[in-house]
Amino acid sequence: MAQNSSRQVGRHFLHIPGPTPVPDRILRAMDTPMIDHRGPEFAKLAKRCLDGIKTIFKTTNPVIIYTATGTGAWEGALTNTLSSGDKVLMVETGQFGALWKKMADKLGLQTELLATDWRTGVDPKVIEKRLSEDKKHEIKAVCVLHNETSTGALSPIAEIRKAIDAAGHPALFMVDTISSLASTDYRHDEWGVDVTVGGAQKGLMLPPGMSFNAISNKALEANKTSKLPKSFFDWQDMLNLNKSGFFPYTPATLMLFGLDVGITMLHEEGLDNVFARHDRLAEATRIAAKHWGLEILCKDSKYYSPTVTAILLPEGHNADQFRAMALETFNISYGASFGPFAGKYFRIGHLGDVNDATMMGCLATTEVALQLFGVPIKKGGAQAAMDYLLSQHGAAKKQAAE
Amino acid sequence: MAQNSSRQVGRHFLHIPGPTPVPDRILRAMDTPMIDHRGPEFAKLAKRCLDGIKTIFKTTNPVIIYTATGTGAWEGALTNTLSSGDKVLMVETGQFGALWKKMADKLGLQTELLATDWRTGVDPKVIEKRLSEDKKHEIKAVCVLHNETSTGALSPIAEIRKAIDAAGHPALFMVDTISSLASTDYRHDEWGVDVTVGGAQKGLMLPPGMSFNAISNKALEANKTSKLPKSFFDWQDMLNLNKSGFFPYTPATLMLFGLDVGITMLHEEGLDNVFARHDRLAEATRIAAKHWGLEILCKDSKYYSPTVTAILLPEGHNADQFRAMALETFNISYGASFGPFAGKYFRIGHLGDVNDATMMGCLATTEVALQLFGVPIKKGGAQAAMDYLLSQHGAAKKQAAE
Amino acid sequence: MAQNSSRQVGRHFLHIPGPTPVPDRILRAMDTPMIDHRGPEFAKLAKRCLDGIKTIFKTTNPVIIYTATGTGAWEGALTNTLSSGDKVLMVETGQFGALWKKMADKLGLQTELLATDWRTGVDPKVIEKRLSEDKKHEIKAVCVLHNETSTGALSPIAEIRKAIDAAGHPALFMVDTISSLASTDYRHDEWGVDVTVGGAQKGLMLPPGMSFNAISNKALEANKTSKLPKSFFDWQDMLNLNKSGFFPYTPATLMLFGLDVGITMLHEEGLDNVFARHDRLAEATRIAAKHWGLEILCKDSKYYSPTVTAILLPEGHNADQFRAMALETFNISYGASFGPFAGKYFRIGHLGDVNDATMMGCLATTEVALQLFGVPIKKGGAQAAMDYLLSQHGAAKKQAAE
Amino acid sequence: MAQNSSRQVGRHFLHIPGPTPVPDRILRAMDTPMIDHRGPEFAKLAKRCLDGIKTIFKTTNPVIIYTATGTGAWEGALTNTLSSGDKVLMVETGQFGALWKKMADKLGLQTELLATDWRTGVDPKVIEKRLSEDKKHEIKAVCVLHNETSTGALSPIAEIRKAIDAAGHPALFMVDTISSLASTDYRHDEWGVDVTVGGAQKGLMLPPGMSFNAISNKALEANKTSKLPKSFFDWQDMLNLNKSGFFPYTPATLMLFGLDVGITMLHEEGLDNVFARHDRLAEATRIAAKHWGLEILCKDSKYYSPTVTAILLPEGHNADQFRAMALETFNISYGASFGPFAGKYFRIGHLGDVNDATMMGCLATTEVALQLFGVPIKKGGAQAAMDYLLSQHGAAKKQAAE
Repeated sequence: MAQNSSRQVGRHFLHIPGPTPVPDRILRAMDTPMIDHRGPEFAKLAKRCLDGIKTIFKTTNPVIIYTATGTGAWEGALTNTLSSGDKVLMVETGQFGALWKKMADKLGLQTELLATDWRTGVDPKVIEKRLSEDKKHEIKAVCVLHNETSTGALSPIAEIRKAIDAAGHPALFMVDTISSLASTDYRHDEWGVDVTVGGAQKGLMLPPGMSFNAISNKALEANKTSKLPKSFFDWQDMLNLNKSGFFPYTPATLMLFGLDVGITMLHEEGLDNVFARHDRLAEATRIAAKHWGLEILCKDSKYYSPTVTAILLPEGHNADQFRAMALETFNISYGASFGPFAGKYFRIGHLGDVNDATMMGCLATTEVALQLFGVPIKKGGAQAAMDYLLSQHGAAKKQAAE
Repeated sequence: MAQNSSRQVGRHFLHIPGPTPVPDRILRAMDTPMIDHRGPEFAKLAKRCLDGIKTIFKTTNPVIIYTATGTGAWEGALTNTLSSGDKVLMVETGQFGALWKKMADKLGLQTELLATDWRTGVDPKVIEKRLSEDKKHEIKAVCVLHNETSTGALSPIAEIRKAIDAAGHPALFMVDTISSLASTDYRHDEWGVDVTVGGAQKGLMLPPGMSFNAISNKALEANKTSKLPKSFFDWQDMLNLNKSGFFPYTPATLMLFGLDVGITMLHEEGLDNVFARHDRLAEATRIAAKHWGLEILCKDSKYYSPTVTAILLPEGHNADQFRAMALETFNISYGASFGPFAGKYFRIGHLGDVNDATMMGCLATTEVALQLFGVPIKKGGAQAAMDYLLSQHGAAKKQAAE
Repeated sequence: MAQNSSRQVGRHFLHIPGPTPVPDRILRAMDTPMIDHRGPEFAKLAKRCLDGIKTIFKTTNPVIIYTATGTGAWEGALTNTLSSGDKVLMVETGQFGALWKKMADKLGLQTELLATDWRTGVDPKVIEKRLSEDKKHEIKAVCVLHNETSTGALSPIAEIRKAIDAAGHPALFMVDTISSLASTDYRHDEWGVDVTVGGAQKGLMLPPGMSFNAISNKALEANKTSKLPKSFFDWQDMLNLNKSGFFPYTPATLMLFGLDVGITMLHEEGLDNVFARHDRLAEATRIAAKHWGLEILCKDSKYYSPTVTAILLPEGHNADQFRAMALETFNISYGASFGPFAGKYFRIGHLGDVNDATMMGCLATTEVALQLFGVPIKKGGAQAAMDYLLSQHGAAKKQAAE
Repeated sequence: MAQNSSRQVGRHFLHIPGPTPVPDRILRAMDTPMIDHRGPEFAKLAKRCLDGIKTIFKTTNPVIIYTATGTGAWEGALTNTLSSGDKVLMVETGQFGALWKKMADKLGLQTELLATDWRTGVDPKVIEKRLSEDKKHEIKAVCVLHNETSTGALSPIAEIRKAIDAAGHPALFMVDTISSLASTDYRHDEWGVDVTVGGAQKGLMLPPGMSFNAISNKALEANKTSKLPKSFFDWQDMLNLNKSGFFPYTPATLMLFGLDVGITMLHEEGLDNVFARHDRLAEATRIAAKHWGLEILCKDSKYYSPTVTAILLPEGHNADQFRAMALETFNISYGASFGPFAGKYFRIGHLGDVNDATMMGCLATTEVALQLFGVPIKKGGAQAAMDYLLSQHGAAKKQAAE
């Protein structure tokens, strides 16, 4: 190994916006001999998971657990509710908004994509306006990402629900929460979402390989008339067999062991504490970035993401090379850049099982790495983040003392 | 815990026909911190897996690795090659033959199901006859299971290939090897299979959550004109990104760590040794069953499965209750029964990371459990299996000495 | 790998009489990041262990936990209670009896070794006679092994206590329970033992690296005047610091995580069930051996060990070569032979986390391996063991039904 | 969990000066089924370890591997070379110097303790002076700690060797390297050390439970006439059995699996790189402390420790309370304080598997925690450390480019 390289020394600082660092407690729960997926022990495990996951989506309806990554749950949401040629309204908030649209096209849906400059979230007014124009109710579904992972923009789901209602439009409302679930507040039932797509490898802290569909009664109704072909992602077989704690085909047993622990850990900390922690660490990250004089990709603070912050490098500095250098020198990974901004930004994930100390380490390391790479920053960003975290902990301490 | 119960004492004897016991070496390889699935370390891992898996299917073409269980790979095989309304010829060798047919129906294909009594494999002559009748070549694909897991019947793939050729029929040939791959010989290229469906949780010894499509050039051609909608299981995105060692969406990183080790272990033992071991343990199991005076579900010895043996209990003895009692008393799991024979048989899996000592323990335990449950058997089945294994090892020893 | 070799396939059948197979649950508890051994979390862990281990020795006095294997605890027992030149009465029941005597010599004690033919346990009458002769009470301690691991002989501790009392002798009574603790009944307090030596890697199911001294008040008194030098094994520092949940020097943190789980598992099963299981599996082993026509090293059934059975091979058959062949062919390990019988016997361990199915696998494999090695046995031993186990489980079932 | 508490969220920052964070690779190597410690696989493992550990001590002589923590290896060093009443010269550099002296007293040696103010290392001149006065060569051994863990002071072993030689004194030279081995340069043979005591749970990155004695020929000579009783720690049995890859009593099998990997990892990084990394992170820590305006316990920079830095808090601030608050709020552990300075300082461990990012996280967290606790520091210490690390990596980069 080259001198001063930390590539394989110490803990890796995994700051991609997911898969997030898997807690040792979850890894250990999954490092276990296989059991019979049709036996009594399995049924108990599955029921704990099927019940527990509802508390994460804040729904009383069933949640489908897929053995597939989030992309699969996207497909489940569309194919279980829609028919070939149905019109869906989507928003290109970034790479993943674009990819979901691409999927809908492939599945034979008619997509309408509302463009953005990739630097913002979904504006409820735009949705309301477009739906209001759709007098014939040709639009069958509105699909948005709660958090656009590729750019770091959070969209206001409750407000978008209101916008749909204000337009008096009957379209299904589908929301992707892959990189927001269990990291920031989300309320499937209260916010009137019809299908919520979620993944396990972010806020739930599992390895990739599991995803979810939370479903409203309206979506279940739509399912009855939906004609898109589906089998692996079919809800009905799942709903039937899940009742007795089983699955229509071999589930990912070890992932369920992990899910059981992930849900338990979230409740041990308390969901509101989890969300507050994400907000705090996200703000610390933005404070550092702004101090450095670097631009945050998301232009409008009201859309700032609590889970990932995309940071633009100045012209002439390649973000991919920066990431490679940081990985080699400091054993830290950042998220890649996409689309019109490919090579121009890097993303700092601050989600999942991450604490203040780790984020301070990440930000200090990032500051040093940026300087080492020759980016003309104003140093002191990590210090500014530390000051902020001190103030937050100080306030909490004071409050606890009162 | 009740006296004499071994439910949670000692190692579990997992004799379902998959998921199979995951070797500690694989579990440990998967018990590892998450890495960036877009980083350099990942690309190396993925390339090792993508190359290695070809040697298991015995193909030089690419193999698709899905983050989904085998059912997903079934869907991938159909949706990537066929169009709505296409006719497919399938064989109901048992529960999984029936389920694949049900999936094809759901996906909008026109299925023709050749029935069997669930006690045999696929007869090449029946295939040849049916294809010969299809003068207009309306049948677009022939789908069979190499090994029908639910009944324990192995079908002769090379001979079925010859039957298709003898009929001069251009149908695609699709084979499910979920419970045979890496346990008995299989040759995707040599046997002229167009799509081979495989899973990771049997002969490859991984936990469930990964499956495969091995693809012929003819299948790749068919893919170009196939019109069934597909996205998560789409081959093209996979093939494109796999070239550089990446995936179109987040892959199951830890499963790939496991796959890498699973393939390595198979080659360390030697595939031919792996196959011989499975044959030996399967024969030992059948010898025991026959000695007990119990009927093997598969009636014809030429279709005997090298990976799973289904054993009928005499009238009046419920196989599900027998399994529950054996689990509680002896910490052993068997496979369940299905379809017309539900409750009438149990299955002994003898596949994956299993050795002679474990199988002797399984057979001796089964003999005692059958007696304890009150099944009127002739004792000595385990002894007969031991005699057979002794003869096999004696012959091998003699051969080695010569 | 050679054809038919199972050396590295499937689970290893570890039938040495310890270290025993570590349950996955314990391995996983130990596969955990390091914590501060002077922090609050550690103190709670240590207290659970220090309290729990008392229930295993059946004592209300403190138990010393050493970071050392059993040999270290032997040294702790002697150096904490005796002074240079003190006379100790020991019994050469086998290799470990001899080794403990050798240790006592090295430490400057005056040892008197009662010989045996290595085929029996300790006869209380012999102890009583010898102590009665010691009118001057020159003998300061009587040291015996509860279970002589090297030969498979269990000595009657309660009766030896009575023998000492009958002789009216004030000697300290020290008992090694390394291969019996947590596998067969043992009562430190009730049986009036002064120092009990135990180890973690047998009935407690941990990896090697931890051992124990359970201590009577009389031993604590002796400690005050004992003059043998001691430091690492010194009781006083331990007793003082253990009160607050800490250790005088860095303890083996991960072993304590394992111990905590090991004690929990034993109580979940119920100690009496644990003992009954060991008795049952031991008897099954002896039934097989006798059926084979092989001689059990322990000549007198009243001394039969519940944890290990030593089996003599006929003249002309080298037991070490037999073990090597069995390991290579069947992936099974047996215990080695010692002393006057070196090369003449092998030992089957049936202790720790082992169930009926595993023992049936072990005995069937052993029968086949003996035949393969050319030992002239009468086959049917495994069958006889199966018959016995069936009768035991049948009786239990009947009892439960009544 | 209280709001803002990170006690159980994210990775623990373990900055006690050992046991150090165990790398996942080592934990995984230890999370493995037990093997026969008298079988062929074990012998290979043991030989790799016995050979490999020599390269860490830089000796060609055998190294004894004890199943015991460092305190046990202290005892081994003394009891294997000395006799009751022998005079040993020791230096009270801190808590561990004092404890080793206490042990020597207990073992019946006559100790002479050179006092220090606990804020410095061993001065070679003081040693030379004292030995020169010992005309009759009554002093049989000089015992020093290479690194005094309790205060963070490194002593110059090569110079002390020269001092002993300058005094023309034949005393054995014994060095404790428990918290320096594999973290800073150490040369058992070249520096003429007779017995080096080492531990596994610091630079070697293992969990606690293993320790070492590296031995010179002179020490082996002394062993022949040494009369202190010893058995568990006796060198001769070890040396004899180690030759064939075995141990005189059950070794800690899993620890040897870990040791094998630990040694491999050190050589993969390169010992000189390991040492440079420790120096760099230690200097960064001191820069931060000095910037904060806090006093480093070790007064003289020539004795600064590369593995642990003890930092004094100003009067009126209890260091133990500070540590408890930091643990609760930030999930970080520091080392405790001892002796005359109990409650007055905390120690930051920067040794073992720790990288720049982790240390920046530690220092930033420490700065925030100090402020939160109300310690009047000058903020900017973490920033100063970052500046230093940037300069070091910048210089390395420049050098690599040339």
